[in-house]
Amino acid sequence: MSELISGIAASAGIAIAKAFILENPELNIVKKPIENSEAEIARFQDALDKAKVELAAIKDRAFSELGEDKAAIFAAHLLVLSDPELIDAVKQKIQSENVNAESAMDEISSMFINMFEQMDNEYMKERAADIRDVSKRVLSHLLQVTFATPASITEEVIIIAEDLTPSDTAQLNRKFVKGFATDIGGRTSHSAIMSRSMEIPAVVGTKSVTTKIKNGVMVIIDGLDGQVIVDPSEDTIKQYEDKKETYARQKAEWAKLVNEATHTEDGHHVELAANIGTPADVQGVLDNGGEGVGLYRTEFLYMGRDQLPSEEEQFSAYKEVLEKMGEKPVVIRTLDIGGDKELPYLDLPKEMNPFLGFRAIRLCLEEQDMFRTQLRALLRASVYGNLKIMFPMIATLDEFRSAKAILLEEKEKLSSEGTSVSDSIEIGIMVEIPSTAVMADIFAKEVDFFSIGTNDLIQYTMAADRMNEQVSYLYQPYSPAILRLVKMVIDAAHKEGKWAGMCGEMAGDSVAIPILLGLGLDEFSMSATSILPARSQISRLSKEKIADSLDKILNMSTTAEVEAFVKESF
Amino acid sequence: MSELISGIAASAGIAIAKAFILENPELNIVKKPIENSEAEIARFQDALDKAKVELAAIKDRAFSELGEDKAAIFAAHLLVLSDPELIDAVKQKIQSENVNAESAMDEISSMFINMFEQMDNEYMKERAADIRDVSKRVLSHLLQVTFATPASITEEVIIIAEDLTPSDTAQLNRKFVKGFATDIGGRTSHSAIMSRSMEIPAVVGTKSVTTKIKNGVMVIIDGLDGQVIVDPSEDTIKQYEDKKETYARQKAEWAKLVNEATHTEDGHHVELAANIGTPADVQGVLDNGGEGVGLYRTEFLYMGRDQLPSEEEQFSAYKEVLEKMGEKPVVIRTLDIGGDKELPYLDLPKEMNPFLGFRAIRLCLEEQDMFRTQLRALLRASVYGNLKIMFPMIATLDEFRSAKAILLEEKEKLSSEGTSVSDSIEIGIMVEIPSTAVMADIFAKEVDFFSIGTNDLIQYTMAADRMNEQVSYLYQPYSPAILRLVKMVIDAAHKEGKWAGMCGEMAGDSVAIPILLGLGLDEFSMSATSILPARSQISRLSKEKIADSLDKILNMSTTAEVEAFVKESF
Repeated sequence: MSELISGIAASAGIAIAKAFILENPELNIVKKPIENSEAEIARFQDALDKAKVELAAIKDRAFSELGEDKAAIFAAHLLVLSDPELIDAVKQKIQSENVNAESAMDEISSMFINMFEQMDNEYMKERAADIRDVSKRVLSHLLQVTFATPASITEEVIIIAEDLTPSDTAQLNRKFVKGFATDIGGRTSHSAIMSRSMEIPAVVGTKSVTTKIKNGVMVIIDGLDGQVIVDPSEDTIKQYEDKKETYARQKAEWAKLVNEATHTEDGHHVELAANIGTPADVQGVLDNGGEGVGLYRTEFLYMGRDQLPSEEEQFSAYKEVLEKMGEKPVVIRTLDIGGDKELPYLDLPKEMNPFLGFRAIRLCLEEQDMFRTQLRALLRASVYGNLKIMFPMIATLDEFRSAKAILLEEKEKLSSEGTSVSDSIEIGIMVEIPSTAVMADIFAKEVDFFSIGTNDLIQYTMAADRMNEQVSYLYQPYSPAILRLVKMVIDAAHKEGKWAGMCGEMAGDSVAIPILLGLGLDEFSMSATSILPARSQISRLSKEKIADSLDKILNMSTTAEVEAFVKESF
Repeated sequence: MSELISGIAASAGIAIAKAFILENPELNIVKKPIENSEAEIARFQDALDKAKVELAAIKDRAFSELGEDKAAIFAAHLLVLSDPELIDAVKQKIQSENVNAESAMDEISSMFINMFEQMDNEYMKERAADIRDVSKRVLSHLLQVTFATPASITEEVIIIAEDLTPSDTAQLNRKFVKGFATDIGGRTSHSAIMSRSMEIPAVVGTKSVTTKIKNGVMVIIDGLDGQVIVDPSEDTIKQYEDKKETYARQKAEWAKLVNEATHTEDGHHVELAANIGTPADVQGVLDNGGEGVGLYRTEFLYMGRDQLPSEEEQFSAYKEVLEKMGEKPVVIRTLDIGGDKELPYLDLPKEMNPFLGFRAIRLCLEEQDMFRTQLRALLRASVYGNLKIMFPMIATLDEFRSAKAILLEEKEKLSSEGTSVSDSIEIGIMVEIPSTAVMADIFAKEVDFFSIGTNDLIQYTMAADRMNEQVSYLYQPYSPAILRLVKMVIDAAHKEGKWAGMCGEMAGDSVAIPILLGLGLDEFSMSATSILPARSQISRLSKEKIADSLDKILNMSTTAEVEAFVKESF
């Protein structure tokens, strides 16, 4: 009897195989007095060492199969295992209370997990997940329990689990694991992000796959529509095999566009670029036919470490990206930290409304040493490619002028030190604050380009936190209010002979793309895997035809009207 | 040797008199074992009773001298004294630990104070101040310590204190207390608000008055410029007596305008209305020549209590305001709760960014029972005056349509029940979210009026929390971005034959007023005490002359340019 379970489409594609329930045995931790605390500490240290060896192996495998940024997760896990705040506390507990290592480890790590989980901060919540993952690993060695590891799978399966930890995901063998479904998680959870970069179809947040699916039963994962079909009939399997084939054909179609430029049906050219987080992501951009990097988020250089990155470290990361991209443009955004992204080594104040707080350029204009270090690294790297520098969260012209003045000062200094710096670096801004969109005509006289950051622009324009589920209905990219602001920015840029791009999620959204084309957007920057579908879509659109409908769209009353019209018309 | 201390101008005017240091003796609380816990509990109860009698007297005095809303503070204090969570905990502590009442009271109240103070919420922090105030009162009775009370002052003085508690302020005798200065507090602290409603010149937040000023020394309070002059020379006293006289003449000039309409020099009429929080505020509106109530914040009906206000309670509050205002328009805003304003009896989620969260109309459209009760009370009250209903935090047309539909449903129900409801109630919205300003032309076809809420509109447009000091430089009412949005709203209203008002702080700001006049704003709603100065300023302005400069202003690059130009030109 077939059953349908709905969830969140985390990674596109169709998979059909038998279920493999990935279930970790309960860790039964009993608090026991011990006699020799020295010996117990030694036993604890032994478990730590084994866990480290294991993690180092997983890290290496992740590095070679998944890239540097994914391997960084395990570097962070290794750091947890060496963290004196955690490890010394456990040892001290064993010694002072004469208790067994399992209970000491469990209590201390639970304390840290609770502490991090209670923080109103996604980054810190992820730290809690890391500690939980590492702690389980150490406990399994202490208890001599063997975990079901995805690495042991040797036949084609679909993994069913409550959630996949970062280390579970890194161990998945793409040859055998055809897809997965989990009870918890969302589109941006660890496992969802991993599934996309590994190109394994996945559905997350189903709430019930582990209770409804038995080991060995046939399962279909529909990562296109976010559905799991349990025990499908022959007909259903046939139907999904067709869907899988159609999708494969579509992917093959897209693949042909890798080396093509992006043109509309009526011959209008736009640039499709990618958003990246680390130099390792550049390969994906090239593989997917990216015409540039529209947004390099430099935050990752600053995160998951215990001090600021040096000028040299930054220089070599920027240089690497620029060199790999060759002649293609690379827009590097200066540090956007603060808000929901904290740095443990920067003593940032706790804020009541971090999204409306002291972050990005606001912070950089105060913490000038940090800012100048980044700018120097960027300027030095500029001779290795086609660099454009972009400032985030600009709300006033004063802020832009201050940031630009600091950049020019550092450029001057480098020149006088004899360091060569490119003379053709464009200096632009993110347009993600409503005031800047409204004053775009004035900004356009002074900036070299705009890149519209829709994630933030939408949340500020609608006054709705995009992370808050209760107001998520207000996150409306197709709202005529948003479209009008986007138009103001594009028109203002063109009037001054500048270009306007977009680097928010909206740039890769198939409903938004026709409108943005019509409005004259010059550059669309999206996740690398969206580029080929977007190129394919654009090749079938006529800019002129869309332009005829723009007035109508911009004067609609609601998002729903816009969406329905676009879907029907283009 | 004269000394100048700068602080925050909390209440306008000049006062010259001797300093009276209001210092409360240290409460030395020693934890002691007791033998008879029953007797100790009786002693505690006795102290509670005395505190209640005292508070009831203060409350009555506050009611007759300061009005209902100020008296409500002491009603809240009385509630604290009857709160079983606090009082029973103290009694239990006395009994179970056999400790003296002073230490039990101190420990339990400190626990509550800490708890409330740590909340990221202004309303809850005020609760901490209430508990501290009440707790000190009870402890003074237990320790038989007499507090210096402002009520005992019988000569003309200026009060110097670290801070004034709500009960201190309520006991000030206006005959003798000519002004005050405090170390802590800001423009919106309890004592600052009180000083304005009592019209006593005050400077707060000086950080140092209690350490720098000795009892009996001559002091000048300059509540116009936020300065305290200690031990002034004869010349300085003369100079400030002149300033005081000039200010008094100006006030007399203003007073003549109480019954005048508001006209510019070139004969253009605008309406000056007031923002109120309770029916008791209406008297101040009439005394200050208000031509209407531009914003009645109904939140206060819901706050400082343990359950929702009934339809009857609300009905009588709305009716009272409407009746007192007679023919004059009264804009009543439906509940704007959530964000920084919590209600203990509504189980609202803790949010990461409450200003971008589930509040106001978003909450009311979910909590429909609560919303419908308020709407029924408003509709029933509508026959007693000139009511206009306004929805807060409208971001999309869908929200307005839903809210209006619910209102019309309730109107229908009331009519079918035979209850009479006015047929000429205007239904409008706050424009405080950027999307709504940008789409004002579309909204204008469906709403009867707009009222621009600048406090929120500025914070969302600039993406800067107005409560966060680190980004307070971005709270820029004169930013061309804000002015352009205001223009969009006014133009959109006029195009459809509707009116546009403003009920944020900007409406009473002397730099903003000329620009808003030039843009064609129809109604300015401000604090009652700002109305006469505004009327006086407007009478000297020419709308036509300002209109000639508007294009120039709207195309300036920065707030500073706008401010300098307006100050120089009008």
